[in-house]
Amino acid sequence: MSSPGASALRTSTCPVARATAVVGDRWSLLIVREAYDGARRFNDFQRRLGMAKNILSGRLRALVADGVLETTPAADGGPYHEYRLTEAGLDLFPVLVALRQWGEAHAFAEGEPRSELVDDRAGRPVVPLRVVAADGRPVDATTTVVRKPRTAA
Amino acid sequence: MSSPGASALRTSTCPVARATAVVGDRWSLLIVREAYDGARRFNDFQRRLGMAKNILSGRLRALVADGVLETTPAADGGPYHEYRLTEAGLDLFPVLVALRQWGEAHAFAEGEPRSELVDDRAGRPVVPLRVVAADGRPVDATTTVVRKPRTAA
Repeated sequence: MSSPGASALRTSTCPVARATAVVGDRWSLLIVREAYDGARRFNDFQRRLGMAKNILSGRLRALVADGVLETTPAADGGPYHEYRLTEAGLDLFPVLVALRQWGEAHAFAEGEPRSELVDDRAGRPVVPLRVVAADGRPVDATTTVVRKPRTAA
Repeated sequence: MSSPGASALRTSTCPVARATAVVGDRWSLLIVREAYDGARRFNDFQRRLGMAKNILSGRLRALVADGVLETTPAADGGPYHEYRLTEAGLDLFPVLVALRQWGEAHAFAEGEPRSELVDDRAGRPVVPLRVVAADGRPVDATTTVVRKPRTAA
């Protein structure tokens, strides 16, 4: 179902590895983006993303299997089921925002037109994400370390 | 160089799409993770990730071309060059943290051993990321909207 290498990542003790096993490919991330933006049916995703149907079908199935999306009967009683974000799917929001903000900073020229993520009240761009320590201090890759899990003696 | 579909994403007006064109595959994300954790040489990455050398080689080349990594002469004067994170590479930190926190919440059983990202002073886990509006209100996928760029009339 997933790309080569993904299965070993699923048993890693590293949460980044396990997360990438589920959403570590651009199509899965863009499917989630479209779901946030209201896509519900296979044809919605297909039209918006322009993906080959067999690839889209495989990715949707994997996202359902991994608990990111769930299928429900069509809201209008029609014959096609719909894909809805689960709680886990909704919890991917910071991942998408982090990617968006990185793209804004590093993948656009000054003044180049781009979409913006704004809040639904004031319509102002969301604030750049900050990673902070327990004491509130901003931290980055140079002021954090990864602590491996203790293994049984 | 990159997977099929990536090239069209590079001209999208969506910053998420452009970001996924650069780091939208699990190997690229895990290479960046290892670079944060001190990997510098081809063999470091190869040994830690257990990737096929030709795939690793292609991914490293793409990350250099996209300005996430840069090559420098070996710090010890040896014959092999090293890969260093650029400013853009260091700025991917929130992306990795967001993936980590999602993995912690949704890809581990209660009590299952996992690595932790802790600050280098107190050794306490970093705080869960929060997306906030300009007025400080926490927002999520249901309280934000994507505003498309204005197009020339």
